[in-house]
Formats: sequence, C-alpha cells, structure tokens
Amino acid sequence: MSASSRILNLAVIPGDGIGPEVVAQGLKVLNAVLPQDVKLETKEFDFGAKRYHATGETLTDADVEALKQHDAILLGAIGDPSVPSGVLERGFLLKLRFLFDHHVNLRPSKLLPGVATPLKGQPEIDFIVVREGTEGPYTGNGGSIRTGTPHEVATEVSVNTAFGVERVVRDAFARAQARPRKKLTLVHKNNVLSFAGHLWTNIFTKVAAEFPDVTTDYLHVDAATIFLVTDPARFDVIVTDNLFGDIITDLAAAVSGGIGVAASGNINPGREFPSMFEPVHGSAPDIAGQGKADPSATVLSVALLLRHLGYEPEAARIEEAVSADLAERGDTVRSTEQIGDALAVRVAG
Amino acid sequence: MSASSRILNLAVIPGDGIGPEVVAQGLKVLNAVLPQDVKLETKEFDFGAKRYHATGETLTDADVEALKQHDAILLGAIGDPSVPSGVLERGFLLKLRFLFDHHVNLRPSKLLPGVATPLKGQPEIDFIVVREGTEGPYTGNGGSIRTGTPHEVATEVSVNTAFGVERVVRDAFARAQARPRKKLTLVHKNNVLSFAGHLWTNIFTKVAAEFPDVTTDYLHVDAATIFLVTDPARFDVIVTDNLFGDIITDLAAAVSGGIGVAASGNINPGREFPSMFEPVHGSAPDIAGQGKADPSATVLSVALLLRHLGYEPEAARIEEAVSADLAERGDTVRSTEQIGDALAVRVAG
Ligand SMILES: CC(C)[C@H](C(=O)O)[C@@H](O)C(=O)O
Ligand SMILES: CC(C)[C@H](C(=O)O)[C@@H](O)C(=O)O
Repeated sequence: MSASSRILNLAVIPGDGIGPEVVAQGLKVLNAVLPQDVKLETKEFDFGAKRYHATGETLTDADVEALKQHDAILLGAIGDPSVPSGVLERGFLLKLRFLFDHHVNLRPSKLLPGVATPLKGQPEIDFIVVREGTEGPYTGNGGSIRTGTPHEVATEVSVNTAFGVERVVRDAFARAQARPRKKLTLVHKNNVLSFAGHLWTNIFTKVAAEFPDVTTDYLHVDAATIFLVTDPARFDVIVTDNLFGDIITDLAAAVSGGIGVAASGNINPGREFPSMFEPVHGSAPDIAGQGKADPSATVLSVALLLRHLGYEPEAARIEEAVSADLAERGDTVRSTEQIGDALAVRVAG
Repeated sequence: MSASSRILNLAVIPGDGIGPEVVAQGLKVLNAVLPQDVKLETKEFDFGAKRYHATGETLTDADVEALKQHDAILLGAIGDPSVPSGVLERGFLLKLRFLFDHHVNLRPSKLLPGVATPLKGQPEIDFIVVREGTEGPYTGNGGSIRTGTPHEVATEVSVNTAFGVERVVRDAFARAQARPRKKLTLVHKNNVLSFAGHLWTNIFTKVAAEFPDVTTDYLHVDAATIFLVTDPARFDVIVTDNLFGDIITDLAAAVSGGIGVAASGNINPGREFPSMFEPVHGSAPDIAGQGKADPSATVLSVALLLRHLGYEPEAARIEEAVSADLAERGDTVRSTEQIGDALAVRVAG
C-alpha cells in the first residue's frame, strides 16, 4: 500500500432471511464506488437465528470486542420465526445499539421520482427522522409480578435523561440547520406522557435558542401520523423518542416508496464505537433465497455509512444511482443481483 | 308521561372551540331519531378552558357525582392553546376515563362511499379498533428527579394488569365474533416491550381458545401502521393498548375519511358508570365559531351512544343517514348547521 492509501475496515453481518442476498449487493456497490486509494477490508460475522439455534448465543463479549475493531458495521437483517419474539431483538440488535451507544437512529424518507406510493397525487416527501436510540421504553426496564396468574402486573418503564435527550436534540438541530428548509419538528405525546414530555419539550426549547435560523414545530405523535399521510411535505427534520421513532419511520417508509428503499443508520456521532447501518426492512423469510428482494435499501444504507465516515461524494453518487435506477425501473422485474449489478455500473460510471 | 315511556338522561359537555357547534347538531339529530315514547332529558356541563381560567377547576368531586346521575355523556371537544398542555387532558378527559372505568375505547373506521381518502384506489376500509382505555402508559405513573437540571431523569411507567388486559381482549373477541369476517388482530410491540408484550400475547392466546370461530393475527405496532396505508382491508377488529390505540386510530381516521367523520366511545360495558361518546377530533380553535366544522363525527358518536344504550335501530338509522349524506355531498360546501339539518331530516324521514 502506498503511504497515501486509506483503509475502510468493515464488519459485515449478513444475518437471516434475505439479509445475505441484499448485503452481497451492498458490498458490490460499495466496492464499485470506493476511490482507488481506499482499501476495503471486510470481516463477516455469523450472528442471527442459525448461530442462536446452534450455540444459544446471540452476541458474546468476544463478539463485541471483535466488532469494536471496525470502522463501521453493515447489517442485512436479523430475525426468524423459529426464534421466540424478542430473543434476537433484545439479545442482538438492541444490545448493540446500547453497547455502542447508537443514540442517533437516522432514517431518511425521500419519495424518489418514479417510485410508487400508496398516497394519491405523488406528494413531495423529503425528510429525515432523528430517532433517539438508547433510551425511552427500549431500555428493558420494567418487569412483572404474579406472572401467568390472573393477578399479573407487568410494567414497562420509559427512561429519559437530560443528557440523552439533549445530545439527540442537538444533533437534530444541526442536521436541520444544514438543510435548505431548516425546519425541525419535535414529535412526542407531552399532553399525556407529561414527565418525559416536559423533559423533551424543555430541552427542545432551550436548544432552539442556539439555532435561531431553524424553524421549530411540535406535534403529538398521533397527529404526526395524520400529517404523514395527508401532508408529508410539511416535514423536513423530525426528532423524537425511541418508540415514537420506531412507529413513525415505518409509516414514513410505507408512504415514501416502501421498506424496499428505506435505509437507516444506528449512529454514534462521536465515533467512540462503530456505527451500524441497516435497511429498515426485516429478514422477510417468505421470499428468502429467491433473488426477489430489493437491495436498494441496503445500498442506500451503505451511502449513509460512507457519509458517516466522511466519504460524502461517494455517498452522494450512490444516492444518485439509486434515484436514477428507480426512475427508469418502470414495471421491469429484476432480480436482487440484477439491481445490484445495475447500481454498481452506475456508481462506477 | 305514559307508563310505557322511557327516559334518556344525557349529560352534555359542549366544551371548547368547535365543541358547542358540533354538539348542537348531534343533539338535533338525536332528538329527530328518538322514538316518540323516549323522553330526552339533557343537562349541560361547562367543563373546559373557560371554566378552568375562571375557577382553576377541571373536574370537581361534585361534578363527578353530577355526571354519574346520567345514562351517558356526549362530549364535543376539550382543549385550548391558552391552557398548558396536559392540564385539561389529565385533569378532565383522562380523569373521567379512569374514574368511570372506560376500559373499552371503541373507534370504528369505515371509508364510506364518496368520501375522500389520501390513499390511492379507494380501498375497502371497515374495521373497528378496541383500544384499552384505563392502563398502559396513560396511568400517569412515573416522575422526574433533578427536574430542570442537566441531570434530570424522567420516567413514564406503562402499567398492564391481567385483569385489565383480559377484559378488553374478551370484549374485542366478542365484537369480532359478531362481525361477518370474525377476525381479530392484536397490535403490540412484544419483541421490545417484552413484559407487557408477554402479558398481552398470553392472554390473547388464552382467550382465543374460547372463540374458535374467530381468526387471529398479531402485528407489531410499527408494521400495523404500514398495513393501515398499504392494505387496510386486511383489518376487521384490532385490539391494542392505550398508547398504540391512540396512535393507530388517528392514522385510521386519516385514511378513512379524516377526523371530520371519526367517532369514538369511551365505554364501560357493564354500565357501572356512564359511558362517554366524543368525536376523535379536537377543539380546532382555528375554525371555531365559523360554522365550518363537520358535525358528522359527533353525529356518528351519538349513534355509538344509542347502540350502547340498546337503541340499535336508531343507531343504524343515524349511520345510514351519515353514509347517504356523505355519498351525495360532492363538492358542496355546507355549514355545520346545514349538515346537521340534513341529517336530522334523513333520520326522521
Ligand atoms: C426489530 C426491532 C427491535 C426494531 C426496533 O423496534 O427498533 C425495528 O423495528 C427497527 O425499527 O429497527
Ligand atoms: C387528548 C388526548 C389525551 C387523547 C388521548 O391521547 O387519548 C386524544 O388524543 C384521544 O385520542 O382521545
């Protein structure tokens, strides 16, 4: 390697179902877009249902140490009906988000030209959701007593800290400021969840004073779902808690082209730990192994990964390639691999 | 009064904003539809922003006692920007739901012919959501420490009991069994909120065994929002917790004609306390006093009220009238009162 060469050291987690198929195309496009002087080094990890069934493990301490040695993580999808609900979610996905302090869960929604939406009139949709990733009702706090009896009481505790809320709100304001419209909407339910709601609202108001050029707005989560289908053009950047973010980003994906094109990043902005990038869709076991899955969401997740690591021109090239591919796609049915090939040609060209 | 005459003893809460306008039309239609031998007695209550500003009261013990003397409550809307977020919600709306044990929050969604939806292709939408109304994150449990400092921690506790979950699940199964399709979908997030999720899932499975003719289904709340816009026809009856129910019923209203036609009932099925019926929409202060509000949601809430009290033919007549009115409405702009008049004529005729 020449002295000026750089290394991109990537952990790859193909996972379950369609995960391996879409990740293969993501890597293909990544290889095609990277500048000559960047050497891509990948290490594959076998997390997911198969490993769980074979060993009972979801993510060991040694795994965590190994993952830490990478610049970033690319994940396909984790999950299979053969594993009880919650085991891989808590034991792998959420565990990593918490251990690697992925507090910015970034989910862009853009309705690209030529892409079908269930909404009438092809509205303009171009916003990003900054979802908090390490607090709220996702902490696993709570429990149950008299479990399984007619007197069971089960609780879930949403934990919100000034530290956790302020850093994600600040991140969202900075992202809003960097966009042409400079508009940030806080989504919460502060009329009912008053303790957490006051914390979010007070911090949002306080940080807003430091970003006088950013227009701010507040919506209850229930009202936000209405606007996502009646007037999605009103959104530019949304900041919200972990659970509300989970819900509205699936809806956002549905209206802006479906989960076949929805990308996400589990980001540690300070880079103390590797960030993880993954399509919003799951492992879709019903179509696994058939070459039917759309790899676009994974390819767009690779773009988010590159942007996070400072490869802005390459990220933009990928986004343009996916956009152009979708615009020309029409009703042609292509395989996972054909779409990946077409995108690789575009980003290289 | 003849010996065979009946009395319908109704508490009326016009409330704030457009509340008084839509309630007036609801009462007009109620008067028109009631059989000759039923005597309607109404008592108006002044809850809402005005009373709060004048007296600081939202709902006193004496108010609660007075409300208890009625067969049911008809509510317009409560809420005004001049009152801090949460004060009237917690101090009035939620307080009543808890005090009167309104554990079945019933919200039907039906896309009527001729009604606009933001979705392409005018899909078939005809489902009801049975939202739990007295538990979950709505209990007000939680708190904050070091409030207002950089070290604040704010919690919200979702409380779920076997007693509370079983009764609402049972109610939903019974409603599903009474409908032609006999399908019930549980909506939760049991892969993340595992304690509450297990309780809901276990009880759902247990009760399902008693309703072998009801088809069951489970969806995570995030996935449910996707199907609500891509395939709403898949839903027949949905049962879900208080917060998820709040979110998906606003979305359901948005896709099935908007909150101008979305009705709801806060029901105590055993009638230990009066049930309360209200449009899903809020007080809409921006259009208050202008005669612009659509009273259909309130009129449909009156239908739910009548059905709850055993006036099934009258409830059906109101629903048919609203359906016929919407089908013929076209682009004609009519005032709140004109719509109310038209509906009153239809139900009487
Ligand atoms: C699989 C699940 C734990 C996860 C979440 O709820 O965050 C998923 O829905 C997502 O949005 O990434
Ligand atoms: C006003 C608010 C407390 C209420 C709720 O969250 O239940 C409303 O959104 C509703 O759906 O009736």
